[in-house]
Amino acid sequence: MDNFIFNARTKIYFGKGQVDNLPDILNEFGKNVLLVYGGSSIKKNGIYNQITERLSEFSVCELSGVEPNPKIESVRAGAELAKKKNVDVVLAVGGGSVIDCAKSIAAGYYYDGDPWDFVKDSSLIGDVLPVVAVLTIAATGSEMNKNSVISNMASNEKLCTSSLKFIPRAAILDPTYTYTVPAYHTAAGVADIMSHVFENYFKSDMTAGVQDGFSEAILKTCIKYAKKAIDTPDDYEARANLMWASTMALNGLCGAGKSGSFSCHPMEHELSAFYDITHGVGLAILTPRWFRYILSENTVDLFYRYAVNVWGICDEDKFAAADKAIDATYAFFEGLGIPMNLSKLGIDGNKFEIMAKKACANGLSNAYVPLSENDVVNIFNMCV
Amino acid sequence: MDNFIFNARTKIYFGKGQVDNLPDILNEFGKNVLLVYGGSSIKKNGIYNQITERLSEFSVCELSGVEPNPKIESVRAGAELAKKKNVDVVLAVGGGSVIDCAKSIAAGYYYDGDPWDFVKDSSLIGDVLPVVAVLTIAATGSEMNKNSVISNMASNEKLCTSSLKFIPRAAILDPTYTYTVPAYHTAAGVADIMSHVFENYFKSDMTAGVQDGFSEAILKTCIKYAKKAIDTPDDYEARANLMWASTMALNGLCGAGKSGSFSCHPMEHELSAFYDITHGVGLAILTPRWFRYILSENTVDLFYRYAVNVWGICDEDKFAAADKAIDATYAFFEGLGIPMNLSKLGIDGNKFEIMAKKACANGLSNAYVPLSENDVVNIFNMCV
Repeated sequence: MDNFIFNARTKIYFGKGQVDNLPDILNEFGKNVLLVYGGSSIKKNGIYNQITERLSEFSVCELSGVEPNPKIESVRAGAELAKKKNVDVVLAVGGGSVIDCAKSIAAGYYYDGDPWDFVKDSSLIGDVLPVVAVLTIAATGSEMNKNSVISNMASNEKLCTSSLKFIPRAAILDPTYTYTVPAYHTAAGVADIMSHVFENYFKSDMTAGVQDGFSEAILKTCIKYAKKAIDTPDDYEARANLMWASTMALNGLCGAGKSGSFSCHPMEHELSAFYDITHGVGLAILTPRWFRYILSENTVDLFYRYAVNVWGICDEDKFAAADKAIDATYAFFEGLGIPMNLSKLGIDGNKFEIMAKKACANGLSNAYVPLSENDVVNIFNMCV
Repeated sequence: MDNFIFNARTKIYFGKGQVDNLPDILNEFGKNVLLVYGGSSIKKNGIYNQITERLSEFSVCELSGVEPNPKIESVRAGAELAKKKNVDVVLAVGGGSVIDCAKSIAAGYYYDGDPWDFVKDSSLIGDVLPVVAVLTIAATGSEMNKNSVISNMASNEKLCTSSLKFIPRAAILDPTYTYTVPAYHTAAGVADIMSHVFENYFKSDMTAGVQDGFSEAILKTCIKYAKKAIDTPDDYEARANLMWASTMALNGLCGAGKSGSFSCHPMEHELSAFYDITHGVGLAILTPRWFRYILSENTVDLFYRYAVNVWGICDEDKFAAADKAIDATYAFFEGLGIPMNLSKLGIDGNKFEIMAKKACANGLSNAYVPLSENDVVNIFNMCV
């Protein structure tokens, strides 16, 4: 186990009706609030009203229309608005895209230049406004972590910038707020949660017992509850379990003391940067192919542990068990209704080489199994 | 899953050599430090020197001699010293007893009356000085939680007082600092860790998948590494896993959304309050007897899950599996060298009735299986 620093300081308010705590939470930071959200869904499902009814004592300005794979243009617009209105706190109501955008807006408030600068170079992040999150989809874990992923379609770049100052001060996690998430995005969210776990579970260090056990617990929870949440969107138990799984999957717990870069995320970021596809769908497509590609004598022990502890596969032959676990992973995502081929999303091999080059520029040489540009092209080709 | 608030804000510095961060950590709070520790062990093993060498730029006063099952007299002395020296931060170097004591000292600094008042009634806790912990034994989880357990031998009371303000601001967890913990206390620490998990795992709500999976991960980690740490005290992997297990076992993760009071802890607190025995030893003795006492048609499903997921017991008969899991728990503690009978600690049945009365006054009617005074006497008798 490597040395690590762990700090998930977000105060979590979990459960039905926790939105009632919103005024107390915000009052700690001030009266001027920038409310950031995405499309019209929170107006349709009533969450927008539940929020604004509780903000009567605050001065509120709004940035709406934050996109999936949030764009740098939204960060720029939000930071300008925050400066103009001199806000005290950024309130993000939405999923990972909205929260990620809110974090960079919160840094942009104190930054004199173009926010894209500190997306490319996190050392430029100075002060950051407090961020408070109200989560509406179980997926990214942004509600309790330091990451902000921002896209620049002009340069086909989707980059992750990080700062401990980005960690939301508080987050309201009401599982009923995810009842209206459509099946497709529920499934994509589950794939994102599981990918966050895989990225840390599949590392060469197998000595972190607590962390790897936590990873297995999150994976088993996703496997148990994903289909339930899709089939019965207002199943509280299913939604609550997925929501807490999402928060725990990427708050530092699963990766504590396990070094090395992620594998599927850098590859998927290129898919999203070039084709603007749903992040979790890209991850679901890539994951079983990546598994298959890296399975070898060197990695089979880890796949065997995954097979036994997560899928309950009891095959004595390690490779046979690993194969079954990879098949089970594929079948699971497919069973959630995720299109499991890039061609189904209209993506062909045209840009695989430039995408592979960019993916490798983001650290894949330091992944569990180091990946070259050629490896990445091969994996993309397996996904077609 | 019940509603919950989760806030484990402690910034953790985990691994070899993390003590180098101590000056930066303390500088955030001020230059006047109250150093709190126990007996002479940290002087013998060199930790005291490692700490004080890094405090040259600070003004340091010391409270030493904090007892196992820390006494209210130490809290009073520490609070007086803190007031006299006008300290900015309390630095606890030790195990749970020292950290618990430091927390109450930190509250006592701001409290005008006798600290025993707010041990009995946590609503009296006002401001609290920042607490920083350097952990030297894996056991209580006090390094990342809100609890402070203080004993008053004059009244035979051992009480837990809690405040979110008690949560240490930072904690240094260096597994090498536990290399010199003797076998007996390593074993007792493991029993304490596992008991914290049992107290949350054995609750009527079986719908908290992430939390219960985390619990199983911690239990399996303890089972895997306890004997290793005892047999090879400087096994880094074993010490690191136990240390992280201890911190995760009682920081709110395992109990999130699972209501109801603890069972073995209130009973053990009476053993310690009357006989000043090692807390973890008392818990190890009580746990398998408590399991046996509450096993019934109503609880067997939970015991079966414990048997399958933690011990890998595959018996189809649920009661048979539960029995094996309880036997395995007993054998595990016994195998660590823990004396598994109260008589071996010189305790007879003399005071069981008054102890049971006091234990029940601390909430056992709200436990997983509600326990009456008669039940507690029966369980104590099973332990003789």
